[in-house]
Amino acid sequence: MRPRAVVLLSGGLDSATTLAIARRDDYDCHALSLDYGQRHHAELDAARAVAAQLGAVEHRIMRLDMGPYTGSALTDPGIAVPETPAPGIPVTYVPARNTIMLALALGWAEVLDAEAIHIGVNALDYSGYPDCRPAFIDAFQNLADVATRRAVEGSRIEIRAPLIHLSKAQIIRLGVSLGVDYGLTVSCYQASASGLACGRCDSCRLRRQGFEQAGIPDPTRYLV
Amino acid sequence: MRPRAVVLLSGGLDSATTLAIARRDDYDCHALSLDYGQRHHAELDAARAVAAQLGAVEHRIMRLDMGPYTGSALTDPGIAVPETPAPGIPVTYVPARNTIMLALALGWAEVLDAEAIHIGVNALDYSGYPDCRPAFIDAFQNLADVATRRAVEGSRIEIRAPLIHLSKAQIIRLGVSLGVDYGLTVSCYQASASGLACGRCDSCRLRRQGFEQAGIPDPTRYLV
Repeated sequence: MRPRAVVLLSGGLDSATTLAIARRDDYDCHALSLDYGQRHHAELDAARAVAAQLGAVEHRIMRLDMGPYTGSALTDPGIAVPETPAPGIPVTYVPARNTIMLALALGWAEVLDAEAIHIGVNALDYSGYPDCRPAFIDAFQNLADVATRRAVEGSRIEIRAPLIHLSKAQIIRLGVSLGVDYGLTVSCYQASASGLACGRCDSCRLRRQGFEQAGIPDPTRYLV
Repeated sequence: MRPRAVVLLSGGLDSATTLAIARRDDYDCHALSLDYGQRHHAELDAARAVAAQLGAVEHRIMRLDMGPYTGSALTDPGIAVPETPAPGIPVTYVPARNTIMLALALGWAEVLDAEAIHIGVNALDYSGYPDCRPAFIDAFQNLADVATRRAVEGSRIEIRAPLIHLSKAQIIRLGVSLGVDYGLTVSCYQASASGLACGRCDSCRLRRQGFEQAGIPDPTRYLV
């Protein structure tokens, strides 16, 4: 029996690549997406397509009502998605998102008796989010090492962030070599219902730049 | 303006006492409960009553679909709640529950710009759960110290577990001195819809013992 891994899958470029890496490393991959009231569902549709394309054993979408969490442009329709970079933590930051996603993955990993959790965070093109830094992943590993049944019983759930030190261009080259179809993925913060990208938000900008630097044709369907 | 705290409120004895302590310590308290498909809703009804009695500024119930999480007697109707103590981690353990609750509280604390999160975990009468140990709270504090906007900006969200070293009897004495009405709280793992306690599960047993040892009349409404 192959070891199991939970893979956090947003439907974007990074998490698709992360799933491909976990498959390469011979894990049975249980993909997990979170429906937290994103502006659009194109992202979750993309996650479904990616999970199927890359051979996840299963794909679950957990629903979380984040009603009390206002203040992020990614969940609050009253806040505009910025189209020019600004210093500091951007308004697209969702409070504690990666902490919450890893916590949910940890619970599911316990149920599955999985050996690892994969998350596609990235420290270079990280847009200034505090929960994309290597120190964050290390701190969550330390937490997992005391929080679980496995911890009490002397084994471990490993938190893997295989993209953490890669540039967007390196991620794209690696993903292409592993057969990722980036045409299925949606990175845009304000994609249309059918998955068309705006081409102007921070996430679109980083993605477009990544394909250019990788020298790989960009399969993204842009609105303009 | 008083400092704000998020207080995790399950509707049980420990979290009610924790809310009373946070109020005593002069926090504006924002109570948070999680509806994760508990066997019964008496617990959430109790949380509402406790929040009102103890003067929380607000009380939110977040809904989380824990469909993929099977294997706990507290969420899976196919598993019986045990009525005799057994060694090891009991089947009433919900995988990563406190990690998930603290993660959700952390996000809300960020939104509120709260200074603290209060959780009513207890290391003595902890029923063998890995995520009720002091090492778990320390590890979550370390995580919070890197995961948030506050962390990047040089301040802190403090994780407070004021009951962690108290016995059930000490908790009850403290709560009574702070005006907690324990008749409103529900600890039973299999309470009836109207909040009657079974009197036989692990949680009922610890609670009943606590009132006996504290020498305080037990206001719990038992089924038998």
